[in-house]
Amino acid sequence: MFKTIDEVTTYVSKHIPDFGLENELEATEIGDGNLNYIFRVSDKKTGRSVVVKQAVPYARSTKDYALTAKRNRLEAEALKHYSSYVPHLVPDVYFNDDQNNCFIMEDLKSFDNLRAALLQRQEYDFLSDQIASFLAETLIHTSDISLDPLEKKELVKKFINSELCKISEDLVFTDPFKNVGNTNNIFPPNNDYIHDKLYNDSDLHLEAAKLKFLFMNKPEALIHGDLHTGSIFINEKGIKIIDPEFAFFGPIGYDIGNVVGNLIFVYANTLATLDKGSAKDKFLTWLERTISDTIDLFRQKTQVLFFSEVKDAMAATPGFFDWYMDGLISDSAGYAGLEMIRRIVGEAGVEDIESIQKTEARLSAERFVITLAKVFIKERQAIRKGPDFVSRIQECVAGSDGLS
Amino acid sequence: MFKTIDEVTTYVSKHIPDFGLENELEATEIGDGNLNYIFRVSDKKTGRSVVVKQAVPYARSTKDYALTAKRNRLEAEALKHYSSYVPHLVPDVYFNDDQNNCFIMEDLKSFDNLRAALLQRQEYDFLSDQIASFLAETLIHTSDISLDPLEKKELVKKFINSELCKISEDLVFTDPFKNVGNTNNIFPPNNDYIHDKLYNDSDLHLEAAKLKFLFMNKPEALIHGDLHTGSIFINEKGIKIIDPEFAFFGPIGYDIGNVVGNLIFVYANTLATLDKGSAKDKFLTWLERTISDTIDLFRQKTQVLFFSEVKDAMAATPGFFDWYMDGLISDSAGYAGLEMIRRIVGEAGVEDIESIQKTEARLSAERFVITLAKVFIKERQAIRKGPDFVSRIQECVAGSDGLS
Repeated sequence: MFKTIDEVTTYVSKHIPDFGLENELEATEIGDGNLNYIFRVSDKKTGRSVVVKQAVPYARSTKDYALTAKRNRLEAEALKHYSSYVPHLVPDVYFNDDQNNCFIMEDLKSFDNLRAALLQRQEYDFLSDQIASFLAETLIHTSDISLDPLEKKELVKKFINSELCKISEDLVFTDPFKNVGNTNNIFPPNNDYIHDKLYNDSDLHLEAAKLKFLFMNKPEALIHGDLHTGSIFINEKGIKIIDPEFAFFGPIGYDIGNVVGNLIFVYANTLATLDKGSAKDKFLTWLERTISDTIDLFRQKTQVLFFSEVKDAMAATPGFFDWYMDGLISDSAGYAGLEMIRRIVGEAGVEDIESIQKTEARLSAERFVITLAKVFIKERQAIRKGPDFVSRIQECVAGSDGLS
Repeated sequence: MFKTIDEVTTYVSKHIPDFGLENELEATEIGDGNLNYIFRVSDKKTGRSVVVKQAVPYARSTKDYALTAKRNRLEAEALKHYSSYVPHLVPDVYFNDDQNNCFIMEDLKSFDNLRAALLQRQEYDFLSDQIASFLAETLIHTSDISLDPLEKKELVKKFINSELCKISEDLVFTDPFKNVGNTNNIFPPNNDYIHDKLYNDSDLHLEAAKLKFLFMNKPEALIHGDLHTGSIFINEKGIKIIDPEFAFFGPIGYDIGNVVGNLIFVYANTLATLDKGSAKDKFLTWLERTISDTIDLFRQKTQVLFFSEVKDAMAATPGFFDWYMDGLISDSAGYAGLEMIRRIVGEAGVEDIESIQKTEARLSAERFVITLAKVFIKERQAIRKGPDFVSRIQECVAGSDGLS
């Protein structure tokens, strides 16, 4: 742990000697100090900067400390893997310090957080293409399609991330339906609705349970594990993916589903807060196209990768790719629905929904998200292509009378 | 490595001091020395004996040596886990020596090998019940139904068994269809038949590929991984399961399927070699009942265990158990089929088939097994209960005109 902010500049100048002279560096804390300390260290002369990320060593117990250390190490490891497949889509890691649960990486100060940018109705034509590239490249390259089976299993072992998985198992797959830990945050006017539509829908619980067991028992690829729009940074040139603390070998559809689910949040925000008119229609149309294209470009890119990479003689059997891909997209629909539900009622909300000021508007936005989430989960076996998502979104909009 | 047989008695008297005085012990090698050295050490006065099992340290490379060491350690570890759930169904392990890839265990000299006993048409009324107990207890207790999720993932990590899995991935799931390593052993008169029915059936390859990917990506429970009838010992009192060298966290159906597949081999042997008559009918009927009861008792015992053990709030959802169990049995049918095929054409044959002397009889037995295997694999989604297996066996018998 850094005791003073000056120790951070000393640390950077020591470990990246060619970055700048110590007395010309300046450090500021830019994180919220919740799970990690994040510092920006700038060279006052050149204006260049780097970011230092250190996992917070909880003082509560040595067990927590071990968790902290491991989380930080796996995050740096995952970024390293990503960088071997898509160096342009992740920050550079300049120095990795397992002993201090710390790494020094590229400063993304010229990028905006995607969630914030989308809430400003920013459109990016390249967004679906770059997200699809990130998904296809990082997931297929770490799956049994591409990896040697011995190497894959060594990686599965290295990325066992039980404690962070447990957080998802509880927060995504259990609490939103059972409120076991009494940690749910329900928007009070929606209390009866949530009880009726989530807590009392046993068919929904059954599908959530199946998806939970897949999450726990399908080490398909090295997934990011928390790929919401707050983990994506963007500027006019492209995206950068950060924060793979939850990385482990899990179902590919979980990452895709998280992306889709988080695009739905800003869709719901737009439906509920923008006045009817061309600006609203235009942004919703762009979001629909982005969701649809993300899925279809993922399919296309994966298909190319699959047939160039596939080493397994059996996986090359005609029909296998379609079976494999159909399963990935169905899983994605299910996991999108689960992400959508847990962010409405679970412990961790999202700004897209919580920032909606008018009670009626927020109420409708939440109901739209939950209705659509249930459709994604229950109809996931029929969801195969981008337009299968969009048609369901549009049906939900029609059913909820546009929330306007 | 023991240099002389006397070193084995010294070793036993040193590590199990109350077993017998060194000068009253006698050691004999009883294994085939292929993968392991196996010694029986007897006390000449009392007649008591123990077995020493040491993995053969291949001298070819240090990599092989590491594999050997790990294999032996995982085998002893798996036996230890089994013994905590079903102590009466596995040999006692008296001493475990990781350093020398060696363990000392109960001598099963009062037991017969089940494969040999079945080829003698021995019937055991308790067989299905005890196998079902072994399967339900060892598999459900090491699954997410019963284990704490953190503990489960630590065990998954411990039992990563890449090299042994690779053997199965090649020998069970690839070579029988592709003959990649040119290691298949086809009974020459069946050459055209095999090419036509296995090598050229692309639909079959597709289903085998799906089951292969499940095998590689479904760490449901600590499976034995090689549960054929040669790994089961039996006497009038009960069974003992040995040799879990291939143990890893994989699909539960793989173990069940191996049991079913190997019961089919002796069924095929009986069809092909016993003269028509009551002895033949009686034994076939007993085998059919044993297969059916193994499945249905596994379902019953698992149901009891499930509802007494289940800790996961979502898994307790109504309907989940049936969905879970249906999946296990379908997988079992698929894996039974794959075991049946690989033992007919793959590198490792079985005595049940290879010992059939008459060319026509062996030819028919092999074709019966392959026809039935393909039905199990292709129709597995419809196979849910014991009688679903038996009806398909009987249809195949009718179709092949009883092989007599």
